[in-house]
Amino acid sequence: MSVPVVILVEPQLAENIGMTARAMANFGLSELRLVAPRNGWPKKGMREAASGATHVLDAAKVYATLPEAVADLNVLFATTARERGQMKRVLLPDVAMAEANVRIANSDKVGVMFGRERIGLLNDEVSLADAIVTFPVSEEFPSLNLAQAVLLVGYEWRRAAGLAQAPFTGEIRAQQATREALLSLFETLEATLARAGFYPPEKRESIARNMRDRLHRMSLTEQDVRTFRGALKALERGARRRPDGAA
Amino acid sequence: MSVPVVILVEPQLAENIGMTARAMANFGLSELRLVAPRNGWPKKGMREAASGATHVLDAAKVYATLPEAVADLNVLFATTARERGQMKRVLLPDVAMAEANVRIANSDKVGVMFGRERIGLLNDEVSLADAIVTFPVSEEFPSLNLAQAVLLVGYEWRRAAGLAQAPFTGEIRAQQATREALLSLFETLEATLARAGFYPPEKRESIARNMRDRLHRMSLTEQDVRTFRGALKALERGARRRPDGAA
Repeated sequence: MSVPVVILVEPQLAENIGMTARAMANFGLSELRLVAPRNGWPKKGMREAASGATHVLDAAKVYATLPEAVADLNVLFATTARERGQMKRVLLPDVAMAEANVRIANSDKVGVMFGRERIGLLNDEVSLADAIVTFPVSEEFPSLNLAQAVLLVGYEWRRAAGLAQAPFTGEIRAQQATREALLSLFETLEATLARAGFYPPEKRESIARNMRDRLHRMSLTEQDVRTFRGALKALERGARRRPDGAA
Repeated sequence: MSVPVVILVEPQLAENIGMTARAMANFGLSELRLVAPRNGWPKKGMREAASGATHVLDAAKVYATLPEAVADLNVLFATTARERGQMKRVLLPDVAMAEANVRIANSDKVGVMFGRERIGLLNDEVSLADAIVTFPVSEEFPSLNLAQAVLLVGYEWRRAAGLAQAPFTGEIRAQQATREALLSLFETLEATLARAGFYPPEKRESIARNMRDRLHRMSLTEQDVRTFRGALKALERGARRRPDGAA
Protein backbone atom coordinates (compact mmCIF):
# COMPACT_ATOMS: atom_id res chain seq x y z
CA MET A 1 0.00 0.00 0.00
CA SER A 2 1.21 3.38 -1.01
CA VAL A 3 2.06 5.95 1.65
CA PRO A 4 2.66 9.70 1.51
CA VAL A 5 6.07 10.90 0.40
CA VAL A 6 7.97 13.21 2.76
CA ILE A 7 9.80 16.08 1.06
CA LEU A 8 12.32 18.14 3.00
CA VAL A 9 13.21 21.42 1.34
CA GLU A 10 16.80 22.55 1.92
CA PRO A 11 17.18 20.80 5.27
CA GLN A 12 20.32 21.73 7.09
CA LEU A 13 21.02 19.68 10.21
CA ALA A 14 22.09 16.04 10.09
CA GLU A 15 20.23 15.38 13.31
CA ASN A 16 16.97 16.67 11.88
CA ILE A 17 17.23 14.52 8.79
CA GLY A 18 18.07 11.46 10.86
CA MET A 19 15.26 12.08 13.31
CA THR A 20 12.90 12.67 10.41
CA ALA A 21 13.81 9.25 9.05
CA ARG A 22 13.11 7.72 12.44
CA ALA A 23 9.78 9.54 12.84
CA MET A 24 8.80 8.29 9.38
CA ALA A 25 9.70 4.71 10.27
CA ASN A 26 7.75 4.95 13.52
CA PHE A 27 4.57 5.44 11.54
CA GLY A 28 5.23 3.35 8.46
CA LEU A 29 6.38 6.06 6.04
CA SER A 30 9.33 5.12 3.87
CA GLU A 31 9.80 7.48 0.92
CA LEU A 32 11.97 10.49 1.72
CA ARG A 33 12.99 13.13 -0.80
CA LEU A 34 15.45 15.91 -0.07
CA VAL A 35 15.69 19.09 -2.09
CA ALA A 36 19.16 20.70 -2.14
CA PRO A 37 20.28 19.77 1.39
CA ARG A 38 22.43 22.60 2.81
CA ASN A 39 26.05 22.22 3.86
CA GLY A 40 26.86 18.92 2.23
CA TRP A 41 25.35 15.53 1.49
CA PRO A 42 25.44 12.94 2.82
CA LYS A 43 25.68 14.35 6.31
CA LYS A 44 27.74 13.10 9.20
CA GLY A 45 25.67 12.19 12.19
CA MET A 46 22.53 11.52 10.19
CA ARG A 47 22.63 7.75 10.54
CA GLU A 48 23.13 7.87 14.30
CA ALA A 49 20.16 10.21 14.68
CA ALA A 50 18.08 7.84 12.56
CA SER A 51 18.45 5.23 15.31
CA GLY A 52 17.87 2.12 13.26
CA ALA A 53 15.76 3.76 10.55
CA THR A 54 18.76 4.01 8.23
CA HIS A 55 16.83 2.14 5.51
CA VAL A 56 14.82 5.32 5.04
CA LEU A 57 18.03 7.32 4.58
CA ASP A 58 19.50 4.74 2.23
CA ALA A 59 16.43 4.90 0.01
CA ALA A 60 16.16 8.70 0.17
CA LYS A 61 16.39 10.59 -3.12
CA VAL A 62 18.10 13.94 -3.47
CA TYR A 63 16.89 16.53 -5.98
CA ALA A 64 18.39 19.85 -7.07
CA THR A 65 15.06 21.68 -7.22
CA LEU A 66 11.61 21.36 -5.72
CA PRO A 67 9.70 21.13 -9.01
CA GLU A 68 11.86 18.10 -9.87
CA ALA A 69 11.20 16.55 -6.48
CA VAL A 70 7.43 16.82 -6.79
CA ALA A 71 6.99 16.35 -10.54
CA ASP A 72 5.38 12.91 -10.32
CA LEU A 73 3.07 13.65 -7.41
CA ASN A 74 -0.65 13.95 -7.99
CA VAL A 75 -1.44 15.62 -4.67
CA LEU A 76 0.83 17.87 -2.62
CA PHE A 77 0.53 19.38 0.84
CA ALA A 78 2.70 22.16 2.27
CA THR A 79 3.29 22.41 6.02
CA THR A 80 3.50 25.97 7.29
CA ALA A 81 3.19 27.65 10.65
CA ARG A 82 2.42 31.12 9.41
CA GLU A 83 -0.26 32.78 7.35
CA ARG A 84 0.93 33.15 3.77
CA GLY A 85 -1.67 35.46 2.30
CA GLN A 86 -2.56 32.78 -0.18
CA MET A 87 -6.04 31.63 -0.88
CA LYS A 88 -5.19 28.04 -0.20
CA ARG A 89 -7.19 25.69 1.95
CA VAL A 90 -5.67 25.32 5.41
CA LEU A 91 -6.09 21.92 6.99
CA LEU A 92 -5.19 20.39 10.31
CA PRO A 93 -3.10 17.23 10.07
CA ASP A 94 -5.98 14.85 10.74
CA VAL A 95 -8.15 16.31 8.00
CA ALA A 96 -5.21 16.51 5.58
CA MET A 97 -4.25 12.89 6.16
CA ALA A 98 -7.86 11.76 5.83
CA GLU A 99 -7.83 13.44 2.44
CA ALA A 100 -4.45 11.90 1.62
CA ASN A 101 -5.89 8.51 2.49
CA VAL A 102 -8.78 8.96 0.08
CA ARG A 103 -6.44 10.10 -2.69
CA ILE A 104 -4.03 7.23 -2.15
CA ALA A 105 -6.93 4.79 -2.27
CA ASN A 106 -7.63 6.37 -5.66
CA SER A 107 -4.04 5.62 -6.73
CA ASP A 108 -2.86 9.22 -6.46
CA LYS A 109 0.71 9.73 -5.30
CA VAL A 110 0.65 12.12 -2.34
CA GLY A 111 3.49 14.22 -0.93
CA VAL A 112 3.92 16.46 2.09
CA MET A 113 6.52 19.26 2.00
CA PHE A 114 8.40 20.42 5.08
CA GLY A 115 10.51 23.57 5.01
CA ARG A 116 13.88 24.78 6.22
CA GLU A 117 14.65 24.69 9.92
CA ARG A 118 14.56 28.44 10.32
CA ILE A 119 12.38 29.92 7.63
CA GLY A 120 10.15 27.06 6.59
CA LEU A 121 8.91 27.03 3.00
CA LEU A 122 9.03 30.02 0.67
CA ASN A 123 5.75 31.37 -0.70
CA ASP A 124 6.54 30.11 -4.20
CA GLU A 125 7.07 26.65 -2.76
CA VAL A 126 3.80 26.72 -0.80
CA SER A 127 2.05 27.79 -3.95
CA LEU A 128 2.94 24.46 -5.64
CA ALA A 129 0.68 22.69 -3.17
CA ASP A 130 -3.00 21.80 -3.26
CA ALA A 131 -3.43 22.78 0.37
CA ILE A 132 -1.61 23.90 3.47
CA VAL A 133 -1.24 21.73 6.55
CA THR A 134 -0.72 23.49 9.83
CA PHE A 135 -0.45 22.21 13.39
CA PRO A 136 -2.92 23.03 16.17
CA VAL A 137 -0.23 24.34 18.49
CA SER A 138 -0.64 26.85 21.30
CA GLU A 139 -0.16 30.43 20.06
CA GLU A 140 2.24 30.96 22.94
CA PHE A 141 4.57 28.15 21.86
CA PRO A 142 3.89 27.46 18.21
CA SER A 143 7.28 26.22 17.17
CA LEU A 144 7.67 22.50 16.40
CA ASN A 145 10.94 21.11 15.19
CA LEU A 146 11.16 19.38 11.82
CA ALA A 147 11.12 15.79 13.06
CA GLN A 148 8.20 16.54 15.35
CA ALA A 149 6.18 17.98 12.48
CA VAL A 150 6.95 14.85 10.42
CA LEU A 151 6.03 12.69 13.42
CA LEU A 152 2.60 14.30 13.78
CA VAL A 153 1.87 13.96 10.07
CA GLY A 154 3.01 10.32 10.11
CA TYR A 155 0.88 9.63 13.19
CA GLU A 156 -2.20 11.15 11.58
CA TRP A 157 -1.49 9.30 8.34
CA ARG A 158 -1.45 6.00 10.19
CA ARG A 159 -4.71 6.84 11.93
CA ALA A 160 -6.39 7.95 8.72
CA ALA A 161 -5.26 4.81 6.94
CA GLY A 162 -6.93 2.67 9.59
CA LEU A 163 -3.57 1.27 10.67
CA ALA A 164 -3.64 2.71 14.17
CA GLN A 165 -3.86 -0.38 16.27
CA ALA A 166 -2.62 -0.76 19.79
CA PRO A 167 0.26 -3.23 19.45
CA PHE A 168 -1.25 -5.21 22.30
CA THR A 169 -4.43 -5.32 24.32
CA GLY A 170 -4.71 -5.84 28.03
CA GLU A 171 -8.34 -6.72 28.19
CA ILE A 172 -9.61 -9.58 30.22
CA ARG A 173 -9.38 -12.64 28.02
CA ALA A 174 -12.03 -14.82 29.63
CA GLN A 175 -15.69 -14.09 29.04
CA GLN A 176 -17.37 -11.66 31.35
CA ALA A 177 -19.69 -13.31 33.89
CA THR A 178 -23.27 -13.76 32.74
CA ARG A 179 -25.97 -11.45 34.01
CA GLU A 180 -27.32 -14.34 36.05
CA ALA A 181 -23.98 -14.89 37.80
CA LEU A 182 -23.64 -11.16 38.45
CA LEU A 183 -27.14 -10.72 39.84
CA SER A 184 -26.63 -13.72 42.06
CA LEU A 185 -23.38 -12.21 43.35
CA PHE A 186 -25.05 -8.86 43.98
CA GLU A 187 -27.81 -10.52 45.95
CA THR A 188 -25.29 -12.50 47.99
CA LEU A 189 -23.23 -9.37 48.64
CA GLU A 190 -26.24 -7.34 49.72
CA ALA A 191 -27.62 -10.07 51.97
CA THR A 192 -24.20 -10.50 53.59
CA LEU A 193 -23.85 -6.77 54.19
CA ALA A 194 -27.39 -6.59 55.56
CA ARG A 195 -26.67 -9.44 58.02
CA ALA A 196 -23.54 -7.53 59.08
CA GLY A 197 -25.71 -4.50 59.88
CA PHE A 198 -23.92 -2.44 57.27
CA TYR A 199 -26.79 -0.50 55.77
CA PRO A 200 -28.11 2.64 57.51
CA PRO A 201 -31.91 2.52 57.66
CA GLU A 202 -33.67 3.59 54.42
CA LYS A 203 -30.39 3.87 52.53
CA ARG A 204 -29.98 0.23 51.58
CA GLU A 205 -31.46 0.63 48.12
CA SER A 206 -29.39 3.61 47.00
CA ILE A 207 -26.13 2.30 48.48
CA ALA A 208 -26.73 -1.10 46.91
CA ARG A 209 -27.50 0.48 43.53
CA ASN A 210 -24.28 2.52 43.56
CA MET A 211 -22.27 -0.56 44.49
CA ARG A 212 -23.82 -2.51 41.65
CA ASP A 213 -22.88 0.28 39.23
CA ARG A 214 -19.27 0.20 40.41
CA LEU A 215 -19.14 -3.59 40.28
CA HIS A 216 -20.45 -3.53 36.70
CA ARG A 217 -17.42 -1.43 35.77
CA MET A 218 -15.09 -4.15 36.94
CA SER A 219 -15.96 -6.38 34.00
CA LEU A 220 -15.89 -9.35 36.35
CA THR A 221 -15.27 -12.77 34.83
CA GLU A 222 -16.83 -15.96 36.19
CA GLN A 223 -13.59 -16.58 38.07
CA ASP A 224 -13.72 -13.09 39.56
CA VAL A 225 -17.29 -13.73 40.73
CA ARG A 226 -16.20 -16.95 42.41
CA THR A 227 -13.28 -15.16 44.06
CA PHE A 228 -15.57 -12.43 45.31
CA ARG A 229 -18.08 -14.95 46.71
CA GLY A 230 -15.26 -16.78 48.44
CA ALA A 231 -14.02 -13.55 50.02
CA LEU A 232 -17.52 -12.68 51.26
CA LYS A 233 -17.94 -16.17 52.77
CA ALA A 234 -14.56 -16.01 54.49
CA LEU A 235 -15.31 -12.58 55.92
CA GLU A 236 -18.67 -13.72 57.27
CA ARG A 237 -17.15 -16.90 58.77
CA GLY A 238 -14.36 -14.87 60.34
CA ALA A 239 -16.89 -12.50 61.88
CA ARG A 240 -18.94 -15.39 63.31
CA ARG A 241 -15.83 -16.76 65.03
CA ARG A 242 -15.45 -13.47 66.88
CA PRO A 243 -18.94 -12.73 68.12
CA ASP A 244 -17.86 -9.43 69.61
CA GLY A 245 -16.92 -8.21 66.10
CA ALA A 246 -13.29 -7.55 67.10
CA ALA A 247 -10.64 -8.36 64.48
CA MET B 1 -9.14 25.18 32.40
CA SER B 2 -7.42 22.24 33.91
CA VAL B 3 -5.07 20.16 31.79
CA PRO B 4 -3.48 16.73 32.29
CA VAL B 5 -0.39 16.53 34.47
CA VAL B 6 2.75 15.01 32.92
CA ILE B 7 4.70 12.72 35.25
CA LEU B 8 8.21 11.60 34.27
CA VAL B 9 9.45 8.64 36.30
CA GLU B 10 13.20 8.64 36.92
CA PRO B 11 14.08 10.59 33.77
CA GLN B 12 17.77 10.71 33.06
CA LEU B 13 18.76 13.04 30.22
CA ALA B 14 18.62 16.82 30.51
CA GLU B 15 17.77 17.06 26.84
CA ASN B 16 14.74 14.80 27.23
CA ILE B 17 13.38 16.78 30.16
CA GLY B 18 13.88 20.05 28.31
CA MET B 19 12.30 18.75 25.14
CA THR B 20 9.43 17.35 27.18
CA ALA B 21 8.81 20.83 28.60
CA ARG B 22 8.79 22.24 25.09
CA ALA B 23 6.45 19.55 23.76
CA MET B 24 4.11 20.28 26.66
CA ALA B 25 4.15 24.01 25.93
CA ASN B 26 3.48 23.37 22.25
CA PHE B 27 0.12 21.87 23.18
CA GLY B 28 -0.84 23.90 26.20
CA LEU B 29 0.22 21.53 28.98
CA SER B 30 1.93 23.17 31.90
CA GLU B 31 2.13 20.92 34.95
CA LEU B 32 5.23 18.73 35.03
CA ARG B 33 6.13 16.37 37.86
CA LEU B 34 9.41 14.48 38.06
CA VAL B 35 9.94 11.43 40.22
CA ALA B 36 13.51 10.93 41.42
CA PRO B 37 15.36 12.30 38.38
CA ARG B 38 18.59 10.31 37.84
CA ASN B 39 22.06 11.79 37.95
CA GLY B 40 21.30 15.09 39.59
CA TRP B 41 18.72 17.84 39.66
CA PRO B 42 18.44 20.41 38.31
CA LYS B 43 20.18 19.31 35.14
CA LYS B 44 22.57 21.26 32.97
CA GLY B 45 21.35 21.64 29.43
CA MET B 46 17.72 21.26 30.33
CA ARG B 47 16.80 24.91 29.85
CA GLU B 48 18.46 25.12 26.44
CA ALA B 49 16.60 22.04 25.26
CA ALA B 50 13.35 23.59 26.52
CA SER B 51 13.78 26.31 23.90
CA GLY B 52 11.71 29.02 25.54
CA ALA B 53 9.43 26.71 27.50
CA THR B 54 11.49 27.23 30.65
CA HIS B 55 8.36 28.30 32.54
CA VAL B 56 7.32 24.66 32.52
CA LEU B 57 10.66 23.67 34.05
CA ASP B 58 10.50 26.46 36.62
CA ALA B 59 7.09 25.31 37.76
CA ALA B 60 7.99 21.59 37.71
CA LYS B 61 7.74 19.70 40.99
CA VAL B 62 10.15 16.99 42.04
CA TYR B 63 9.06 14.02 44.16
CA ALA B 64 11.04 11.26 45.82
CA THR B 65 8.53 8.51 45.01
CA LEU B 66 5.79 7.87 42.50
CA PRO B 67 2.96 7.37 45.03
CA GLU B 68 3.74 10.84 46.38
CA ALA B 69 3.76 12.32 42.87
CA VAL B 70 0.34 10.94 42.00
CA ALA B 71 -1.36 11.08 45.40
CA ASP B 72 -3.76 13.90 44.52
CA LEU B 73 -4.71 12.66 41.08
CA ASN B 74 -8.17 11.25 40.47
CA VAL B 75 -7.36 9.59 37.17
CA LEU B 76 -4.01 8.20 36.05
CA PHE B 77 -2.77 6.83 32.73
CA ALA B 78 0.46 4.90 32.18
CA THR B 79 2.24 5.02 28.82
CA THR B 80 3.85 1.75 27.85
CA ALA B 81 5.12 0.22 24.64
CA ARG B 82 5.02 -3.40 25.72
CA GLU B 83 2.46 -5.85 26.93
CA ARG B 84 2.51 -6.02 30.74
CA GLY B 85 0.39 -9.08 31.44
CA GLN B 86 -1.98 -6.91 33.38
CA MET B 87 -5.69 -6.87 32.93
CA LYS B 88 -5.75 -3.14 32.35
CA ARG B 89 -7.56 -1.38 29.57
CA VAL B 90 -5.21 -0.42 26.76
CA LEU B 91 -6.09 2.78 24.96
CA LEU B 92 -4.68 4.66 22.01
CA PRO B 93 -3.80 8.29 22.74
CA ASP B 94 -6.90 9.75 21.10
CA VAL B 95 -9.28 7.58 23.08
CA ALA B 96 -7.32 8.13 26.29
CA MET B 97 -7.35 11.90 25.89
CA ALA B 98 -11.04 11.90 25.01
CA GLU B 99 -11.57 10.14 28.33
CA ALA B 100 -9.22 12.57 30.08
CA ASN B 101 -11.25 15.43 28.64
CA VAL B 102 -14.49 14.02 30.05
CA ARG B 103 -12.89 13.48 33.46
CA ILE B 104 -11.39 16.96 33.57
CA ALA B 105 -14.76 18.44 32.65
CA ASN B 106 -15.98 16.57 35.74
CA SER B 107 -13.29 18.27 37.83
CA ASP B 108 -11.08 15.20 38.12
CA LYS B 109 -7.34 15.79 38.15
CA VAL B 110 -5.77 13.65 35.45
CA GLY B 111 -2.16 12.56 35.07
CA VAL B 112 -0.17 10.69 32.45
CA MET B 113 2.97 8.76 33.48
CA PHE B 114 5.98 8.38 31.18
CA GLY B 115 8.78 5.98 32.08
CA ARG B 116 12.56 5.85 32.03
CA GLU B 117 14.39 6.35 28.76
CA ARG B 118 15.54 2.78 28.52
CA ILE B 119 13.16 0.60 30.46
CA GLY B 120 9.98 2.63 30.62
CA LEU B 121 7.72 2.10 33.63
CA LEU B 122 7.98 -0.82 36.05
CA ASN B 123 4.99 -3.15 36.38
CA ASP B 124 4.24 -1.88 39.90
CA GLU B 125 4.16 1.65 38.52
CA VAL B 126 1.83 0.72 35.66
CA SER B 127 -0.40 -0.97 38.17
CA LEU B 128 -1.12 2.38 39.87
CA ALA B 129 -2.90 3.54 36.73
CA ASP B 130 -6.52 3.31 35.63
CA ALA B 131 -5.50 2.42 32.11
CA ILE B 132 -2.55 2.02 29.78
CA VAL B 133 -1.90 4.36 26.88
CA THR B 134 0.11 3.00 24.01
CA PHE B 135 1.08 4.48 20.67
CA PRO B 136 -0.02 3.10 17.29
CA VAL B 137 3.51 2.76 16.00
CA SER B 138 4.76 0.38 13.33
CA GLU B 139 5.86 -2.96 14.84
CA GLU B 140 9.07 -2.63 12.88
CA PHE B 141 10.01 0.69 14.50
CA PRO B 142 8.07 0.98 17.71
CA SER B 143 10.45 3.11 19.70
CA LEU B 144 9.45 6.74 20.35
CA ASN B 145 11.62 8.97 22.46
CA LEU B 146 10.27 10.51 25.64
CA ALA B 147 9.57 13.99 24.26
CA GLN B 148 7.84 12.53 21.20
CA ALA B 149 5.55 10.43 23.39
CA VAL B 150 4.70 13.53 25.42
CA LEU B 151 4.15 15.48 22.18
CA LEU B 152 1.65 12.95 20.86
CA VAL B 153 -0.27 12.87 24.13
CA GLY B 154 -0.31 16.69 24.28
CA TYR B 155 -1.46 16.87 20.66
CA GLU B 156 -4.29 14.44 21.29
CA TRP B 157 -5.22 16.26 24.50
CA ARG B 158 -5.58 19.49 22.59
CA ARG B 159 -7.75 17.81 19.97
CA ALA B 160 -9.93 16.11 22.56
CA ALA B 161 -10.40 19.35 24.44
CA GLY B 162 -11.69 21.04 21.31
CA LEU B 163 -8.73 23.41 21.26
CA ALA B 164 -7.27 22.19 18.00
CA GLN B 165 -7.73 25.20 15.78
CA ALA B 166 -5.60 26.05 12.82
CA PRO B 167 -3.81 29.26 13.92
CA PHE B 168 -4.85 30.85 10.64
CA THR B 169 -7.13 30.13 7.75
CA GLY B 170 -6.37 30.71 4.11
CA GLU B 171 -9.84 30.51 2.82
CA ILE B 172 -11.17 33.00 0.38
CA ARG B 173 -12.51 35.88 2.40
CA ALA B 174 -15.01 37.33 -0.05
CA GLN B 175 -18.29 35.54 -0.57
CA GLN B 176 -18.41 32.84 -3.18
CA ALA B 177 -20.22 33.87 -6.37
CA THR B 178 -23.96 33.23 -6.36
CA ARG B 179 -25.36 30.31 -8.27
CA GLU B 180 -26.79 32.78 -10.76
CA ALA B 181 -23.39 34.33 -11.44
CA LEU B 182 -21.82 30.90 -11.80
CA LEU B 183 -24.46 29.55 -14.16
CA SER B 184 -24.17 32.64 -16.25
CA LEU B 185 -20.40 32.18 -16.42
CA PHE B 186 -20.75 28.55 -17.37
CA GLU B 187 -23.16 29.42 -20.17
CA THR B 188 -20.82 32.13 -21.43
CA LEU B 189 -17.85 29.75 -21.29
CA GLU B 190 -19.70 27.03 -23.14
CA ALA B 191 -21.03 29.33 -25.79
CA THR B 192 -17.57 30.80 -26.33
CA LEU B 193 -16.00 27.37 -26.64
CA ALA B 194 -18.77 26.26 -28.99
CA ARG B 195 -18.18 29.27 -31.24
CA ALA B 196 -14.50 28.41 -31.22
CA GLY B 197 -15.34 24.91 -32.49
CA PHE B 198 -13.88 23.30 -29.38
CA TYR B 199 -16.40 20.58 -28.74
CA PRO B 200 -16.19 17.29 -30.64
CA PRO B 201 -19.64 16.34 -31.91
CA GLU B 202 -21.93 14.66 -29.34
CA LYS B 203 -19.42 15.23 -26.56
CA ARG B 204 -20.38 18.79 -25.70
CA GLU B 205 -22.64 17.82 -22.84
CA SER B 206 -20.25 15.51 -21.03
CA ILE B 207 -17.23 17.78 -21.51
CA ALA B 208 -19.21 20.80 -20.35
CA ARG B 209 -20.49 18.90 -17.32
CA ASN B 210 -16.97 17.87 -16.28
CA MET B 211 -15.74 21.44 -16.70
CA ARG B 212 -18.56 22.73 -14.53
CA ASP B 213 -17.62 20.20 -11.82
CA ARG B 214 -14.00 21.35 -11.86
CA LEU B 215 -15.01 25.01 -11.85
CA HIS B 216 -17.27 24.42 -8.84
CA ARG B 217 -14.20 23.23 -6.95
CA MET B 218 -12.49 26.56 -7.49
CA SER B 219 -14.82 28.30 -5.03
CA LEU B 220 -14.91 31.28 -7.38
CA THR B 221 -15.77 34.65 -5.91
CA GLU B 222 -17.70 37.34 -7.79
CA GLN B 223 -14.37 38.92 -8.67
CA ASP B 224 -13.04 35.63 -9.96
CA VAL B 225 -16.10 35.27 -12.17
CA ARG B 226 -15.51 38.74 -13.61
CA THR B 227 -11.85 37.94 -14.20
CA PHE B 228 -12.76 34.73 -15.98
CA ARG B 229 -15.35 36.47 -18.14
CA GLY B 230 -12.78 39.11 -19.03
CA ALA B 231 -10.27 36.45 -20.03
CA LEU B 232 -12.82 34.68 -22.22
CA LYS B 233 -13.74 37.95 -23.93
CA ALA B 234 -10.11 38.84 -24.55
CA LEU B 235 -9.38 35.41 -25.98
CA GLU B 236 -12.35 35.62 -28.31
CA ARG B 237 -11.40 39.13 -29.43
CA GLY B 238 -7.81 38.05 -29.96
CA ALA B 239 -8.98 35.14 -32.08
CA ARG B 240 -11.20 37.41 -34.19
CA ARG B 241 -8.27 39.71 -34.98
CA ARG B 242 -6.43 36.74 -36.46
CA PRO B 243 -9.09 35.11 -38.64
CA ASP B 244 -6.75 32.34 -39.64
CA GLY B 245 -6.56 31.21 -35.97
CA ALA B 246 -2.78 31.70 -35.81
CA ALA B 247 -1.34 33.11 -32.55
